[in-house]
Amino acid sequence: MMSSYNRVLVRIQDLTPEKADQLVWVRARIHTSRAKGKQCFLVLRHQQFNVQALVAVGDRASKQMVKFAANINKESIVDVEGVVRKVDQKIESCTQQDVELHIEKIFVISLAEPRLPLQLEDAVRPDGAGDEEGRATVNQDTRLDNRVIDLRTTTSQAVFRLQSGICHLFRDTLIKKGFVEIQTPKIISAASEGGANVFTVSYFKTSAYLAQSPQLYKQMCICADFEKVFCIGPVFRAEDSNTHRHLTEFVGLDIEMAFNYHYHEVVDQIADTMVQIFKGLRDNFTTEIETVNKQYPSEPFKFLEPTLRLEYKEGVAMLREAGIEMGDEEDLSTPNEKLLGRLVKEKYDTDFYILDKYPLAVRPFYTMPDPSNAKYSNSYDMFMRGEEILSGAQRIHDPDLLTERAIHHNIDLEKIKAYIDSFRYGAPPHAGGGIGLERVTMLYLGLHNVRQTSMFPRDPKRLTP
Amino acid sequence: MMSSYNRVLVRIQDLTPEKADQLVWVRARIHTSRAKGKQCFLVLRHQQFNVQALVAVGDRASKQMVKFAANINKESIVDVEGVVRKVDQKIESCTQQDVELHIEKIFVISLAEPRLPLQLEDAVRPDGAGDEEGRATVNQDTRLDNRVIDLRTTTSQAVFRLQSGICHLFRDTLIKKGFVEIQTPKIISAASEGGANVFTVSYFKTSAYLAQSPQLYKQMCICADFEKVFCIGPVFRAEDSNTHRHLTEFVGLDIEMAFNYHYHEVVDQIADTMVQIFKGLRDNFTTEIETVNKQYPSEPFKFLEPTLRLEYKEGVAMLREAGIEMGDEEDLSTPNEKLLGRLVKEKYDTDFYILDKYPLAVRPFYTMPDPSNAKYSNSYDMFMRGEEILSGAQRIHDPDLLTERAIHHNIDLEKIKAYIDSFRYGAPPHAGGGIGLERVTMLYLGLHNVRQTSMFPRDPKRLTP
Repeated sequence: MMSSYNRVLVRIQDLTPEKADQLVWVRARIHTSRAKGKQCFLVLRHQQFNVQALVAVGDRASKQMVKFAANINKESIVDVEGVVRKVDQKIESCTQQDVELHIEKIFVISLAEPRLPLQLEDAVRPDGAGDEEGRATVNQDTRLDNRVIDLRTTTSQAVFRLQSGICHLFRDTLIKKGFVEIQTPKIISAASEGGANVFTVSYFKTSAYLAQSPQLYKQMCICADFEKVFCIGPVFRAEDSNTHRHLTEFVGLDIEMAFNYHYHEVVDQIADTMVQIFKGLRDNFTTEIETVNKQYPSEPFKFLEPTLRLEYKEGVAMLREAGIEMGDEEDLSTPNEKLLGRLVKEKYDTDFYILDKYPLAVRPFYTMPDPSNAKYSNSYDMFMRGEEILSGAQRIHDPDLLTERAIHHNIDLEKIKAYIDSFRYGAPPHAGGGIGLERVTMLYLGLHNVRQTSMFPRDPKRLTP
Repeated sequence: MMSSYNRVLVRIQDLTPEKADQLVWVRARIHTSRAKGKQCFLVLRHQQFNVQALVAVGDRASKQMVKFAANINKESIVDVEGVVRKVDQKIESCTQQDVELHIEKIFVISLAEPRLPLQLEDAVRPDGAGDEEGRATVNQDTRLDNRVIDLRTTTSQAVFRLQSGICHLFRDTLIKKGFVEIQTPKIISAASEGGANVFTVSYFKTSAYLAQSPQLYKQMCICADFEKVFCIGPVFRAEDSNTHRHLTEFVGLDIEMAFNYHYHEVVDQIADTMVQIFKGLRDNFTTEIETVNKQYPSEPFKFLEPTLRLEYKEGVAMLREAGIEMGDEEDLSTPNEKLLGRLVKEKYDTDFYILDKYPLAVRPFYTMPDPSNAKYSNSYDMFMRGEEILSGAQRIHDPDLLTERAIHHNIDLEKIKAYIDSFRYGAPPHAGGGIGLERVTMLYLGLHNVRQTSMFPRDPKRLTP
């Protein structure tokens, strides 16, 4: 007898008509189960794929076995042996529509408890569809409280596989461009960016802070001649904001780069990196995008090559033309940001663009002023579907100018001494930016809450699971 | 006149005899500078490469220019225009040994302060070489206090480029194997692994902790059907250990994987991932390895394919044969770990091996006992040059057994309720492990302190820069 250790398991996605009449072993979850007389119909699920299966009283299965199969709790993991059979009529409710599995043996690998905190069918039902037909949907807190189950839905599987793809495309593109990956510390001794919104950590007999961004460290790497660096890591913001797009801990995709003559060299590299991500997702994640769209319909994400770059004052002019009153040096409010996104989409047919040359007054002290117009700065944001996903700038690399700007912003020089000192031993001109991974995932897929694209989101009210 | 924006800059590593007699622009740091009569010899440096350059009074350079060049502080960044000239005698002290640059123009891009906190020549001098010849070396605290400068040395450039390579090889291998990258939260509500050695964070009106490992979250992803997952991220340990291999914050390369029949399926995947990293480093980072070896000589790293796997009791037997007295169920002390590494190297000629089936008593409560011998467990460590770099195990996926083991370890069930509950809705058998990036880098290169392979190390006494 063959030992089970040598058994070959066939994946559900590979159960196709080519396997017809073959006897196969499959490991899967019981997605649904319905007994009907001498038969039991199961839907077996593995990740994004499912197949219909049948246990029927006959040569290969006893009455007891049918009863046993019918009584296995949903979400249990089973090993089944069965024959793949072509079906006459497509099974619309399954991903494997042309075959079903006629089960001859069934073993429980891991038994689920009988009462599930949420039903997977409910969790993938489009919003609204529930109410109309009297069927349930699952609210966000129930999902997040029971994330282990919610993450099993086809939608969640697709969202987080695509998110893994974003990270991979980001790094792959940058490594091809000659960037070096760095690792920056998250526990820091001083709240470098002013001190507001920072989490405090007790550190042995003293206290420390959680880094609000890797910026200082990225810049130190530039001063240390790494020239082009990137990092992916957690970023912490102690902001008491309970919005659809704020988290207290999120994943930052960060870039910093020395340039030769103009900060647009950096802007172009970042924009091209985003374009490579968009292309990679479009070309390699079709299944995932379609899966998410079934539950959350959205328009395909549009982008231009090269990326559209508008100056801030052009954006302000477009808003004014649309009836918005705002000053030249006023920051964009969230509604105006979204409106501008719609105006840009109408005019240029793109969901991704760069807004360049922000007013100096609305940017942090380390932002390089525009040398040709002191009211503006060499800084930029990037937007997807009208929401900011990246904020960046040329950084001041001259310690005297940096000191002057810090004083202008009433920043305590003592607290940023180490930062300023980093530039005292020769510093190349450089620029960079930070991208929020969860926002990019959310906006690419046209979702509406960043908690849908964070596996285990953290906000002022949520610390679990 | 051509604007400087269109100027092409040639990299120092590309200054070879093929470019002889060409007029080129180069951006570099002044590595050293020595005026001698009507001439000034400079060494220009860019990352791991340097070239000799000369400014001499004559047709193209005035006396004032020679003086100006001679007075530029070391580590300043300059743009120079000059002619590449072949040299008769190799310049042994530079990486570009066959050419020098005859400078015609020189501009300062960023001026360094005159007094450097450490000298780069001193910082790359092999330990010991300093004392004998009366030349200085730089101690570790001075290096770390002035990391922006210390990271510019050829050695540091090589170490951290190689480290970037480790991350890239790790992910690339796993993505090819079908793994999904996940992002796990670092702020957690409960200290899941017992509560010792954990940093506390103030979180709005409550408090939270910094994750000591992503293990719970990796396991949740397995229970959520992602099947094979990995993550790279910071790991926090509030241990007051001041050793050569402990940090309070380090980078974890983490793997978790569901298996079909035997946890060795996972062990084999992890070991193969390590082998792919070793091969990639050996084949693609020759320059970096040689550069580090100049300052810190070490034997080339040896490994076998497939990886050597010894059982714990075999290891104990080898130690006993070497005269060590220890019990069957006693853990390995650090000296014994190192001794065993030497014995394994002698016997099997490998710097990398797996020690499998640790005594159950020395492993955490969630470790799966060996079903055939209750004194042992399905757990393993992996070693490089005799030091542990990975600890892993098959995890208990049955909530009842997990509860029983937690009680046996006197763990407060209330505190790990969420963890245990993750396994109640069907959980596949799974195993995994966590690797310390800084240790892998250190041990691959044969270095002796983990602070050399952490860009901005954190230990009980160091929180800056």
